[in-house]
Amino acid sequence: MRTLLIEIRRTPLLWLLVFVPALFVAEALRPEAPSLLFVLSVLAIVPLAALLSRATESVAAKTGDTVGGLLNATLGNLTELVIALAALRAGQYVLVKASIAGAIVTNTLFLLGASFLLGGLKHHTQEYNRNNARLQASLLFLATIALLAPSAVRGADAGPAMAEFVRALSLGLSGLLIVAYALGMVFSLKTHREIFASAEHEGEEEPTWPVGLAVATLAAVTVLVALVSEVFVESVQEAAVAFGMTPAFVGFIVVALVGGAAEMASAFSGALKDRLDLSVGIALGSASQIALFVAPVLVLLSYVMGPAPMGLEFWPGAVVMILIATITASSVTNSGRSAWFVGVLLMMVYAIFAMTLYLLPPQTPPGP
Amino acid sequence: MRTLLIEIRRTPLLWLLVFVPALFVAEALRPEAPSLLFVLSVLAIVPLAALLSRATESVAAKTGDTVGGLLNATLGNLTELVIALAALRAGQYVLVKASIAGAIVTNTLFLLGASFLLGGLKHHTQEYNRNNARLQASLLFLATIALLAPSAVRGADAGPAMAEFVRALSLGLSGLLIVAYALGMVFSLKTHREIFASAEHEGEEEPTWPVGLAVATLAAVTVLVALVSEVFVESVQEAAVAFGMTPAFVGFIVVALVGGAAEMASAFSGALKDRLDLSVGIALGSASQIALFVAPVLVLLSYVMGPAPMGLEFWPGAVVMILIATITASSVTNSGRSAWFVGVLLMMVYAIFAMTLYLLPPQTPPGP
Amino acid sequence: MRTLLIEIRRTPLLWLLVFVPALFVAEALRPEAPSLLFVLSVLAIVPLAALLSRATESVAAKTGDTVGGLLNATLGNLTELVIALAALRAGQYVLVKASIAGAIVTNTLFLLGASFLLGGLKHHTQEYNRNNARLQASLLFLATIALLAPSAVRGADAGPAMAEFVRALSLGLSGLLIVAYALGMVFSLKTHREIFASAEHEGEEEPTWPVGLAVATLAAVTVLVALVSEVFVESVQEAAVAFGMTPAFVGFIVVALVGGAAEMASAFSGALKDRLDLSVGIALGSASQIALFVAPVLVLLSYVMGPAPMGLEFWPGAVVMILIATITASSVTNSGRSAWFVGVLLMMVYAIFAMTLYLLPPQTPPGP
Repeated sequence: MRTLLIEIRRTPLLWLLVFVPALFVAEALRPEAPSLLFVLSVLAIVPLAALLSRATESVAAKTGDTVGGLLNATLGNLTELVIALAALRAGQYVLVKASIAGAIVTNTLFLLGASFLLGGLKHHTQEYNRNNARLQASLLFLATIALLAPSAVRGADAGPAMAEFVRALSLGLSGLLIVAYALGMVFSLKTHREIFASAEHEGEEEPTWPVGLAVATLAAVTVLVALVSEVFVESVQEAAVAFGMTPAFVGFIVVALVGGAAEMASAFSGALKDRLDLSVGIALGSASQIALFVAPVLVLLSYVMGPAPMGLEFWPGAVVMILIATITASSVTNSGRSAWFVGVLLMMVYAIFAMTLYLLPPQTPPGP
Repeated sequence: MRTLLIEIRRTPLLWLLVFVPALFVAEALRPEAPSLLFVLSVLAIVPLAALLSRATESVAAKTGDTVGGLLNATLGNLTELVIALAALRAGQYVLVKASIAGAIVTNTLFLLGASFLLGGLKHHTQEYNRNNARLQASLLFLATIALLAPSAVRGADAGPAMAEFVRALSLGLSGLLIVAYALGMVFSLKTHREIFASAEHEGEEEPTWPVGLAVATLAAVTVLVALVSEVFVESVQEAAVAFGMTPAFVGFIVVALVGGAAEMASAFSGALKDRLDLSVGIALGSASQIALFVAPVLVLLSYVMGPAPMGLEFWPGAVVMILIATITASSVTNSGRSAWFVGVLLMMVYAIFAMTLYLLPPQTPPGP
Repeated sequence: MRTLLIEIRRTPLLWLLVFVPALFVAEALRPEAPSLLFVLSVLAIVPLAALLSRATESVAAKTGDTVGGLLNATLGNLTELVIALAALRAGQYVLVKASIAGAIVTNTLFLLGASFLLGGLKHHTQEYNRNNARLQASLLFLATIALLAPSAVRGADAGPAMAEFVRALSLGLSGLLIVAYALGMVFSLKTHREIFASAEHEGEEEPTWPVGLAVATLAAVTVLVALVSEVFVESVQEAAVAFGMTPAFVGFIVVALVGGAAEMASAFSGALKDRLDLSVGIALGSASQIALFVAPVLVLLSYVMGPAPMGLEFWPGAVVMILIATITASSVTNSGRSAWFVGVLLMMVYAIFAMTLYLLPPQTPPGP
């Protein structure tokens, strides 16, 4: 605990933690002021993300970058899972799916691209273990194929036989994706662990935290991020309209960027330290976890918690964006080398998506 | 001949050969019992496939894996060609196309995936000559592009000018695909033969058959497979309905799995013996032969033997499945290395297709 | 100047230069004879292209193949830019877009494929720097993604809100593509110049021209090509109908083939001399320059020079062809090695497109 306080005193960024209690106070006193809550929640998420990044690095330093990256992606996606569960309970399936699709696209394009750009500006060229990138990209590709069938059928026909077909197919595909995700973990952590090993790193300068403190901080801060994110989601829709953004843009881009702030801090810090395995592991591991674990679990939970069963079908535009993001990330990580321009390319693709969603007239179906 | 009888006595699996005459007797006595004929024909195909595999290996051992694989694919696809010709004469173009599309998808996903899985479970990682995989994947990709144009046009417009356009385009594309296939053989067997050579294998333990016996067995057993397959196809539709399967599922999955049994036995046996070049050659070579040789030949033969000219257009879902199968096989074989999880990924994509076709409501257009 | 005259006397092909003044005389005397002007303009373009090729090689010999290729692509595309500007002033946006899409597809498939085929027939296998091919293919892929959004939206809905959306999106995307193109040049010519270096070449036998003469010839001949091309474009539509070709075929294939004659001469000559870096640089560099620089500049200029703003949306068939061409070129250049059959594959894909466009019934919307 003292280690933690010392760390906070030393790092000016962490002083922003004061906005966490400020947000909860504001929420209790002024629940009807979405623009205020929106700004406060963004300010509160930033230091929490930084703290999470610091704790994850301490664990990663002791477990190797692949496991560390996986751990980070798991805890980072708790945020997305908690947000989606709240929306699921309220029956807001359009928001659930926009946040899932947005998180996949943001992780594979923006998070990976910004890591390559930041790392590339500091280090001329960077190398990383491409086997892990390939595995995650393959899993993502599998998930994208699984989304195609129900989405295509649902777009073409809305009869009762088709609705039942989409429901049954979504259940079967969800089971299949979870099995594939589990087998992928067996493959990368057990049977073929050696081919996913990271490159060696010369001495880490920063002192690492004890594992106990790091794990406890990871858990506690993740819960705080989830609480703050919930306020953020409640306020973002109204605040966004006030700032002149379309619902599609908010669901896809804004929610995903703020929801992924914790992972971004870790990934960018890894890239700057030339530990690109950590960045790639977070970016693609997080995306594949959302696609193969979070999304199917939400489909299954909709039978228990939601007002009606939710399917795996998505809005055609979302499927195309996920497909392009997957293909782009897959071909870009094929060589295991990176330079700043690779990051620019990934972020340009993301910018095309963001620009399209930002300019899209509001009457267009925003989802699901 | 004595070598053959000794082989049959030694191998319990080959005792199932007794079901071959049993099937023909049953067909003569009880032609109105599709479920019985269905079960008997499946039981009869299995030992024939095993015998074919054994004979092909003997030839392959003398000619090198690439030529052996090509030979195997050629004879194995005689089955598909004979089945399709029977359906063509009867004017059942929907069945012809479902079996073509199903054979391509089953070879590239299930056959390749199961080979990687079986080989990978026995051997930690396996290597193979990726040049051959690349060539076959490129040919498949070319064939997929050729299917796109007539399929897209046919889906959008059904006027007489478009029907004439599809007919003329199909003729031209069929000629082009056959030329590409022939040039591909010149490239891999003549001008650049050296880059398709297989890795060396240490001493084969099994005694190989004399070439004369092997070739004679190959030919005779292929004819038997074709005869049995014909009974199978006649009975499968009715039997499938009795077992509760949709026509789309039967045409795509069941016909392709049983029709490809002979190739599967050879490919799996190659994978288990760490001769993955043989397996990859069979899987992708067979798929590209069906796409670039069998399908165009059927289009040309429809002018001579069919009630009306047949085009190269396919049902949109079939085109998408062929496209995904091609892209998946292409990216998976890019590295020339394999482990069990690569096989799982391929089979998962196949499972997504099978699940979709199995659950598809019957009123959906099953093709072409 | 004397060097130039000696060169012309030595090279029989350059004697065709006599058709350049012949064309201008015929245009002045017989402006109503499109078939005559068509034939004369094709005959005049061939020697100009050869001269351009010779001058570019002289410059390339002094600046390295990458810079030489870029230079060639820049000057070669002046032709396309001048043609498109004339069509833009006349408000013929369908022709502008057909020539842009056709030039991209022809460069990536026909020009690259014929270079690989010609080079491969003379040299068994050829190697080239795949980093440059990858960079150009990535830029092309980015441009293709940018075309998808406005094209998809425009096809689905023609309301006024959508028209305004396509207009605004096209402006934004045009800016983004130009920035990406500029950053790509910074990357390949400045910050990471070393990874784009060509392989060493043993002594060039042909004497190179002085840089001053070479640059002056490049400039002057480019202007002549532009003038001749303009006559060609004016006459080609009517002449094509006389020869029985569809408008879609003319816009996509004939204009692009003749418009790219200059680049073809340089690329083929590079391939035959085993300087494949030059050929790949011209083919893919030219395609990416048209997609990321010429097309966006035309969109921006349409606000100043055209009768109405032009958008970035294309006919769906054109988008699919550009996408397939990009994916094909990208996967084919991934290895950095080539043989004759790779060229055959690329040209087969081009032949599929050409065959489809040639047979397409005229009532089909030819664009944009």
